[in-house]
Amino acid sequence: MSAIDLRSKIREVPDFPTPGVGFKDITPLLLDHDALHQAVTELSDWSKERNPDLILGAEARGFILGAAIACHTGCGFVPARRPGKLPPETVSATYMLEYGENSLELNADAIADGARVVIHDDVLAAGGCFVIELSFLGGRERVSQYDMYSLIRY
Amino acid sequence: MSAIDLRSKIREVPDFPTPGVGFKDITPLLLDHDALHQAVTELSDWSKERNPDLILGAEARGFILGAAIACHTGCGFVPARRPGKLPPETVSATYMLEYGENSLELNADAIADGARVVIHDDVLAAGGCFVIELSFLGGRERVSQYDMYSLIRY
Repeated sequence: MSAIDLRSKIREVPDFPTPGVGFKDITPLLLDHDALHQAVTELSDWSKERNPDLILGAEARGFILGAAIACHTGCGFVPARRPGKLPPETVSATYMLEYGENSLELNADAIADGARVVIHDDVLAAGGCFVIELSFLGGRERVSQYDMYSLIRY
Repeated sequence: MSAIDLRSKIREVPDFPTPGVGFKDITPLLLDHDALHQAVTELSDWSKERNPDLILGAEARGFILGAAIACHTGCGFVPARRPGKLPPETVSATYMLEYGENSLELNADAIADGARVVIHDDVLAAGGCFVIELSFLGGRERVSQYDMYSLIRY
């Protein structure tokens, strides 16, 4: 049972960043220490059971809770960054978004062969542990071969 | 005394992102849980003594440790974002960088009147608590009216 209804800490913003898109703003959750701590604890509890070597967080909103989850889980954190932000050598991947596409880069030597990695982002996009899941976008089905957890589902 | 010499966890990258700039890569510190936990603990210990209402982290690298510091300090986190990323209403400020200039935006109602805010970033730019200070850039002198702390000084 949650002490706080974390859904009550998500602000809904219509037509942002583009018309027709409903934006879920996690700022109220971040501003409230009890809600922030509860979100980090719940995501970390799920991660601990998977015994990961690293938490991977995607730029930029996946950075916010990613390192906090790594601290609580007892593992390291690896940032996946926008193109050109990390010094060489890097590896990259391109993926589709609800509105457009994007690329992310990793330091080429950041993740050892065979390492166990939990992927964290604020909103479900590619599998891992999330604050928010937008179930109408079908992300859960697209990553059904992976273990997945989200705090709040719409 | 530090259990780990955090400086040994910073990778030096010459001529990145532009020729003549020496980049301090914090990725090795983040990848190593003990170093990550020590950095968050030391920055949080400093923050706790200031009794802040919020930790402010600047996009994108200031997001990585910012929310973890807020969790440990016992306060909330407020993200300062690049223009256009936050839904309205926002307030913004423009500032000079070592290489260029930049703007950051905040939710207009995120910080209450009279709130005590610790500003965190990975590298000293504008005063607060930092992982790395580049003392040859004179940042400490420019923010001498503020209380300031950095883990590693070059």
